[in-house]
Amino acid sequence: MSPQHVAAASPTIASPAEGRGLFVVFEGGDGAGKSTQAARLAEALSATGREVVRTREPGGTEIGEKLRALVLDHGHGTVDARTEALMFAAARAAHVEQLVLPAIAAGQIVVCDRYVDSSVAYQGVGRGLGVDDVLMINRWATQALRPDLTVLLDVDAAAGRRRRTAGEAAEDRLESEPDDFHASIRDALLALADAEPERYLVLDADRGIDDLAEQILTRVQALLGGGA
Amino acid sequence: MSPQHVAAASPTIASPAEGRGLFVVFEGGDGAGKSTQAARLAEALSATGREVVRTREPGGTEIGEKLRALVLDHGHGTVDARTEALMFAAARAAHVEQLVLPAIAAGQIVVCDRYVDSSVAYQGVGRGLGVDDVLMINRWATQALRPDLTVLLDVDAAAGRRRRTAGEAAEDRLESEPDDFHASIRDALLALADAEPERYLVLDADRGIDDLAEQILTRVQALLGGGA
Repeated sequence: MSPQHVAAASPTIASPAEGRGLFVVFEGGDGAGKSTQAARLAEALSATGREVVRTREPGGTEIGEKLRALVLDHGHGTVDARTEALMFAAARAAHVEQLVLPAIAAGQIVVCDRYVDSSVAYQGVGRGLGVDDVLMINRWATQALRPDLTVLLDVDAAAGRRRRTAGEAAEDRLESEPDDFHASIRDALLALADAEPERYLVLDADRGIDDLAEQILTRVQALLGGGA
Repeated sequence: MSPQHVAAASPTIASPAEGRGLFVVFEGGDGAGKSTQAARLAEALSATGREVVRTREPGGTEIGEKLRALVLDHGHGTVDARTEALMFAAARAAHVEQLVLPAIAAGQIVVCDRYVDSSVAYQGVGRGLGVDDVLMINRWATQALRPDLTVLLDVDAAAGRRRRTAGEAAEDRLESEPDDFHASIRDALLALADAEPERYLVLDADRGIDDLAEQILTRVQALLGGGA
């Protein structure tokens, strides 16, 4: 049985002793602290002897990183909403096929920044393409692979902007959208989590880094059967 | 009423006097002579005073040309079938939104190398992704815009290879597939044409260039109401 069929059949994750891995995704608006918490989780799991693959969407493969650069950078001419959504889906297809599925099959824990929910929120809601259509495209792109757990770091739009601009880097093409765009993204992500609470851990991103890291690790350890 | 709704409602094309353009696509295996015939048609229509936009799939926009380079060149790491299909769909979405729809709305004749049928044949059949799924992705990508006429230049796989290798250029990633891949592409394109004969003009690519050009022009002039 392939990993995606296991995930689709039940929210209960098989123990690592049975040889299956885990797919954990971090979602949240820009500036929510996804990278920090994903890195903390990966470190904590590695410290217990687990094999962890830390990756991000879009990217993680040679073709995916090139698509990521094309779609996120300014200066490649007009990129309309449908084109943007299909480019993210293309990068995601490569990522799932080449990296995520093989790692899960090998019993590893995949910790990933962003996945399908980001496209549903950014392109489906933020760009107005519609949730159902963006989900349809992405289900096909990902061979219907779903995360075992999605950690949603919730942050309101204004706080997100403060958090982003406190950093050094210039904003990319999506980050530089206005606050009401980011507010619609937040609402869309919360709606996805509300619809399937057993698959989500929703946390206030303004809580302390150590506090967040501990809660996330506790939930992941529970999914691993408490044996990590 | 938008151009795609006109096209969907009826195979009869409105005359140019009503301000609507025409969307003519050339399909056929590699080496079938699509570029030559598309150029001939564009020249002949321009000579009668029509505004013609000559373009190709994937490409025709800045983002599309970059996607084209990524997907067709060797040396960008593994590109699996789904990723390939989504990259072509992304380039096509940009092409339709930015170039084809505005040109048709302005009453111009768009003459295009390759469109959705190529993806159905190459990725749906050749790569085994399935005709229905590839059609679904591409209907979404193109806002359901369909050609008014598709000229299918039919060539068998062995003849196609002779025609290609008679040229100077090295074969790209798709062209260098074996003959049975190209044979399956041919069958898929013929099946699409058989299903909707009123939208297709199927011609033996081994006929003389002038003979082919004349038959194509005659059919397009009929669509234009005989007044071109």
